[in-house]
Amino acid sequence: MKYGVLGTGIVGQSIAGKLAQVGHEVMVGTRDVAQTLQRDNADAMGNPPFKVWHQQHPQVKLGTFAEAAAFGEIIFVGISGGRTLDALEGAGANNLDDKILIDIGNALDFSRGFPPTLSVCNTDSLAEQIQRAFPQAKVVKTLNTVTAYVMVNPGMVPGDHDIFVSGNDARAKAKVTEILKNDFGWKSVIDLGDITTARGVEMMMMQWINLMGTLKTPLFNIKVVRAQG
Amino acid sequence: MKYGVLGTGIVGQSIAGKLAQVGHEVMVGTRDVAQTLQRDNADAMGNPPFKVWHQQHPQVKLGTFAEAAAFGEIIFVGISGGRTLDALEGAGANNLDDKILIDIGNALDFSRGFPPTLSVCNTDSLAEQIQRAFPQAKVVKTLNTVTAYVMVNPGMVPGDHDIFVSGNDARAKAKVTEILKNDFGWKSVIDLGDITTARGVEMMMMQWINLMGTLKTPLFNIKVVRAQG
Repeated sequence: MKYGVLGTGIVGQSIAGKLAQVGHEVMVGTRDVAQTLQRDNADAMGNPPFKVWHQQHPQVKLGTFAEAAAFGEIIFVGISGGRTLDALEGAGANNLDDKILIDIGNALDFSRGFPPTLSVCNTDSLAEQIQRAFPQAKVVKTLNTVTAYVMVNPGMVPGDHDIFVSGNDARAKAKVTEILKNDFGWKSVIDLGDITTARGVEMMMMQWINLMGTLKTPLFNIKVVRAQG
Repeated sequence: MKYGVLGTGIVGQSIAGKLAQVGHEVMVGTRDVAQTLQRDNADAMGNPPFKVWHQQHPQVKLGTFAEAAAFGEIIFVGISGGRTLDALEGAGANNLDDKILIDIGNALDFSRGFPPTLSVCNTDSLAEQIQRAFPQAKVVKTLNTVTAYVMVNPGMVPGDHDIFVSGNDARAKAKVTEILKNDFGWKSVIDLGDITTARGVEMMMMQWINLMGTLKTPLFNIKVVRAQG
């Protein structure tokens, strides 16, 4: 299958690398290809620049947002929340319509310092904003509740733990669940309901930040434990 | 030990009943004692009126918010989020100062229908509002991430799962952790940090509502699973 992955950061790299590793054709999309390949410095988290990663993953193509979206039969959006809608505008509705659009972003706003706040929450969500802006795309929210490495290697966190999907299109959610299980290795995928349920998983980000501060590692996840009956 | 429990709903009943059961002296506080004892109808969730519960728990005293706060050496606040600050005004700062004030509320707003929104979140929390309004009280946020029955009977959800504490006063959090473990039966209590970390647990409410919709039961909780290392 052909995938477009929008975003060249650690999230985009993790998703693109895993999809390529399991045998899919992948094009990563960026705003400005020349600029992305020029960048020499590590990101704010100390991750090496995209071109170093790209040298290690030569089978992954690189193009503009529009080229990657046109290339992909399914699109992952792995862009910082605040820039997501701009990036999708750049990709173009004609390259997104009728496709599954997998939103894995968090709308973190660090402008007030730490802890960050969310630039959208409570009465709306990033996923709903995307669905409204691109009504013909089949938006599925998932994976935003774990760090990039765990998204594609859930076994880094031992034992049972859960990932969630939200979206209006049942077949799109079923396909994403198949990708999560077969390609990424997730054992438990919980379907929360329609796209408005993305509010719940996006608002979990604040507790994720709490837990990262307490546990001193991003390598964790949650398991939903329920009463038998 | 003497406890004041503000609120006569299912949350207040659960907390007060458990504290009395394990041998503490408890006074439940309400806005208007006569009105509370007059009420004959079940609440919106079908729970019987307070007076039925009170007949089954005659050792629990009933008083005004101010009387219950004056009575308690430690105060639980089990009031719907939107009415919490008013209730605490009624209790009076002089009855709250220097005491541990355990906030277990969620600021749910159903005025837009379902799903509800939060009347405070993201840049602030109910717990922080309480701490600012009563700076001499030692506010600890906990228990708002599970349903009332599970708060005081964590064994209703099998296996390992976690509850959280947030607050500025380390000794107050240690005392609340002792109550949670010794009186309520919690095995794992995670200290998230200062009172601003209440934003994270309060914003989990939206995912809790998602999960209740999906699992068709409020009898669940989450376990934090982490990488070994």
